Amino acid sequence: MTLIQPRTLKGFRDYLPAAMIPRERLMETARQTFRSFGFAPIDTPTLEHLDILTGKGSEETDRQLYQFIDAGNRPVGMRFDLTVPLARFAAQHIGQLGTPFKRYHIAPVWRGENPQAGRYREFYQCDFDTIGTESVLADIEAVTVIDALLRALGIEAFTISINNRAILTGLLESLGLAESTTPVLRSLDKLGKIGREATAAEMVSSAGIEPAQADQVLRLAECGGTADEVFTTLPEILGGNETAVAGASRLREIYDGAIASGVSPDRIKIDVSIARGLDYYTGVIFETTLDELPSIGSVCSGGRYDNLAGLYTKQHLPGIGASLGLDRLLTALETLDRLSSTSKPCPVFVAFFDENHRDDYLRLATNLRRAGIGTEIYPDSRKLKAQLKYADHHGFAYAIIAGDDEWQRGQVQVKTLAEKTSENVDYQHDAPENLISRLVAR
Amino acid sequence: MTLIQPRTLKGFRDYLPAAMIPRERLMETARQTFRSFGFAPIDTPTLEHLDILTGKGSEETDRQLYQFIDAGNRPVGMRFDLTVPLARFAAQHIGQLGTPFKRYHIAPVWRGENPQAGRYREFYQCDFDTIGTESVLADIEAVTVIDALLRALGIEAFTISINNRAILTGLLESLGLAESTTPVLRSLDKLGKIGREATAAEMVSSAGIEPAQADQVLRLAECGGTADEVFTTLPEILGGNETAVAGASRLREIYDGAIASGVSPDRIKIDVSIARGLDYYTGVIFETTLDELPSIGSVCSGGRYDNLAGLYTKQHLPGIGASLGLDRLLTALETLDRLSSTSKPCPVFVAFFDENHRDDYLRLATNLRRAGIGTEIYPDSRKLKAQLKYADHHGFAYAIIAGDDEWQRGQVQVKTLAEKTSENVDYQHDAPENLISRLVAR
Repeated sequence: MTLIQPRTLKGFRDYLPAAMIPRERLMETARQTFRSFGFAPIDTPTLEHLDILTGKGSEETDRQLYQFIDAGNRPVGMRFDLTVPLARFAAQHIGQLGTPFKRYHIAPVWRGENPQAGRYREFYQCDFDTIGTESVLADIEAVTVIDALLRALGIEAFTISINNRAILTGLLESLGLAESTTPVLRSLDKLGKIGREATAAEMVSSAGIEPAQADQVLRLAECGGTADEVFTTLPEILGGNETAVAGASRLREIYDGAIASGVSPDRIKIDVSIARGLDYYTGVIFETTLDELPSIGSVCSGGRYDNLAGLYTKQHLPGIGASLGLDRLLTALETLDRLSSTSKPCPVFVAFFDENHRDDYLRLATNLRRAGIGTEIYPDSRKLKAQLKYADHHGFAYAIIAGDDEWQRGQVQVKTLAEKTSENVDYQHDAPENLISRLVAR
Repeated sequence: MTLIQPRTLKGFRDYLPAAMIPRERLMETARQTFRSFGFAPIDTPTLEHLDILTGKGSEETDRQLYQFIDAGNRPVGMRFDLTVPLARFAAQHIGQLGTPFKRYHIAPVWRGENPQAGRYREFYQCDFDTIGTESVLADIEAVTVIDALLRALGIEAFTISINNRAILTGLLESLGLAESTTPVLRSLDKLGKIGREATAAEMVSSAGIEPAQADQVLRLAECGGTADEVFTTLPEILGGNETAVAGASRLREIYDGAIASGVSPDRIKIDVSIARGLDYYTGVIFETTLDELPSIGSVCSGGRYDNLAGLYTKQHLPGIGASLGLDRLLTALETLDRLSSTSKPCPVFVAFFDENHRDDYLRLATNLRRAGIGTEIYPDSRKLKAQLKYADHHGFAYAIIAGDDEWQRGQVQVKTLAEKTSENVDYQHDAPENLISRLVAR
């Protein structure tokens, strides 16, 4: 028989245990955090009617869409993000769900991108949104969720940069440049990369505005310092435009509310230069960078939008949401050495080398598991050396070894694998407490 | 603008929070249980090269396959189960993974079935397998995992029926009927439904065996009683055939090992009549029924197979695995009233009706969350009645209400929503312990 070559499609990948264990932990931490704020999980189908998906993202997402005609002759597509399905979902069910509606959704999406370094055609998104309210409390909460999540992941040094789109919108309005918002934003996004002069020149050439106007926009973008300094300087730059002033005042409310919620002031930066490319956002916008790894970019970004589901329903659904960059966060945790390097999800390995004591190994393992200590028994009574090699290779924390002598004596040997130390610990099936407390205590 | 009608594809469904919360809990419990035995998570792509998938299941799965030509002109298909991807995955990575390899995989699969009551074209599978060992310890463990999992879900009354395929195989061998195994199994599967006589008649007509032979096969299938009774009666029925006797002896080892592992004897039934349709299984096979709901069928089934990945690799990979029926289990938990009816994943609701105290609501919520008590704040300062209606509708356990008076007094009002009771509890931001212990204690 000819063998079929086992292989994955270009741009797709298998997750082996060593990669999947930290992913799963990250997703569980995210779920726990979202839930603790009242966000509820939802799921939507992988496949949608094609007309739900096309024309909703960009020309690029249309081109990259996985689409086909199904067996029932329906044009269908695989979701390319979780926002379009949320819009469809909200339009369809909001009557039943009621508002405010707070949901999270962690699921894979597909894009037929040309795969390059670190880009895949199948990847997970992790979004949370509050829909149906314009309350500043929902904005404050989004910032608080990000703070709680990163800290739950053991990350302490990070900066959540926040801005309000309304500030720039208002300024452009007052300069008579409301129509030029998109090209101005596009140029502004490059400020960090190409510098002030080139950005100003590009605004003049591509957005067709006056040099003095470009200067005023750039003065806004450059308004920095502590939150207090920014809020003190802003009014002068904004020159009394109502939209902009209201936007700055709301930004201050969000900042104060986040501090009241326990977010440390040194983790929030008022950054009126961030724009986040999309036209989509209308209010607060935010990005999150890791202080030890700013180069990987934002690990959680989002903002407030004016109307989520306008293509599918007449009901006006404003909201605020953010997307957690799972892959970036995992890369960061790995780089910062915050991931345990294990391909096993439980700490204890029990060697099996005396067939006559099989029941003893089984009982021991059950006792540990019932005490909340994950325990694997090697299934075959192979040489101890091979079994310990397996335990080492897979990154177990402890190996428990017991032969006839130990069982007779009422003891087991506990090896701490990383430290290559071992000690004898008293153990009886009816009195496992001693062993349990030793394993828990370390 | 014409609105696009928001709708899902035939055979697909959205999961709203009230349905998704218990699903997510069930999956988390399954993951925790699998991990506590050393099973590690993996994931594989949704899409596979078509030749990996076709001809691997049945004619039916081939016909139901979602398949198309991708933008790179490759024939691709969406996985229809998690076993074929596991076989491909194991063949591809086993050198790196080593054996024994223990994995679980919880993920959606797709089949273009004609949707009928309770059947969907997209549904989750939840599999665990131990690959690369023939050890009876792996068989024992599979039974123990099922026991641990159902108990972790709060289900106490269930029966794990176990059998060994080798017993019937050996008997048929000794009767000179090795070639007729498949049709005999197919008939035997109907014993419960059509009765002894009709089954015997079908064996004679469709498997072409003698009435006396059919009688002996049926005597085996009917061998019942306690485990001790079955193991006492079996030798006489098996008449010394080596394969069958060895099979019975291994079945006894599995039974004894599961008991040693702490599985209650009244939860294991030796049932030599179960066959599990597939030719695939070669050793132990098992099914799990809920004593209070036997009619929903097996909620966890599986068995031992001789070679997992023979189509993709020459490496011989025996294994044992089982599949948890997530949807059946959820239906069962719902029917047995073991699911809390909530569309919110956190217990505490904080009403928001005094804008001047916004920071107080925020601080209170943070204090509760940091104590591990999930807390949602209503985002808008609407009428209290509307807010409490929202809290009731979504199934929160408690509502916390505080106006200016309460904040002045250093108290909040705690409503227990189901009981419609309320009491005043002392609370200060710097001294939240009293409130926390009241909420935890109940």
